[in-house]
Amino acid sequence: MTTSPAPRKLYLEDLAVGDTFTSATHRLDLEQVRRFASEFDPQPFHLDETAARNSLFQGLAASGWHTAAITMRLLVDSMPLADGVIGAGAEVSWSRPARPGDTLQVKSTVLAITPSRSKPDRGIVLVESVTFNQDGEPVQTLTSKVVSFRRK
Amino acid sequence: MTTSPAPRKLYLEDLAVGDTFTSATHRLDLEQVRRFASEFDPQPFHLDETAARNSLFQGLAASGWHTAAITMRLLVDSMPLADGVIGAGAEVSWSRPARPGDTLQVKSTVLAITPSRSKPDRGIVLVESVTFNQDGEPVQTLTSKVVSFRRK
Repeated sequence: MTTSPAPRKLYLEDLAVGDTFTSATHRLDLEQVRRFASEFDPQPFHLDETAARNSLFQGLAASGWHTAAITMRLLVDSMPLADGVIGAGAEVSWSRPARPGDTLQVKSTVLAITPSRSKPDRGIVLVESVTFNQDGEPVQTLTSKVVSFRRK
Repeated sequence: MTTSPAPRKLYLEDLAVGDTFTSATHRLDLEQVRRFASEFDPQPFHLDETAARNSLFQGLAASGWHTAAITMRLLVDSMPLADGVIGAGAEVSWSRPARPGDTLQVKSTVLAITPSRSKPDRGIVLVESVTFNQDGEPVQTLTSKVVSFRRK
């Protein structure tokens, strides 16, 4: 079982089902929420407090893609795969919005490891990364298929 | 069948399985790729040309989350749901990297429409959004569960 602080440079053979990785924290603020939304998801409930209050979110909410991007940053810094964290695909769900002022943290767990049949130097690691707010409530669950390489 | 330019303000009852929406285009450049990666996915193959050449990507590649964020921007602007494009969750896969210099475009198709049983004012619309590069090659497939409301 690996817990943070994680050792440097993990290869496929260093990983086991059940390994966990806990990230640092990231504080989300209004400026970040608006800046991301302006560029990538310019909808009123991500930009304007009054419009947000009358929306499904009942208050200003970060774009789910912003939460996903912050999650990636926290994951990259907390799961030190030797050749990087390279995703082939992912499933993401948002259970509640992340909001300005929230402090986010990611806890990742190795769910499965599947050696590649065609490429013996690598495998696919199924990683579940749950992003929590400062109250311990999950805001996002991300299940990623990550490519991991064996030691050369 | 709805094609672009799409009419303004679509409600649940305006959507049908098979409806398609074609977005505008977005040109990705080196500055954007590096800026997003520096903040959210600071791995060498998203930041440094030489390191990228020796990686799985064989050249500088945008973060998959950057491709997802650009896709959201193009989707928001091309699928004018009356109460906004609000995702409950999504599946995303990256078939090839998006690269600096690529021009991206998103084609979205309504795959299924499921009225909510508990909340009669809304339904879940399953939308497949394929992001293509300028050569017509798919770089990402995103299947989103989008909340859509009925006319009040």
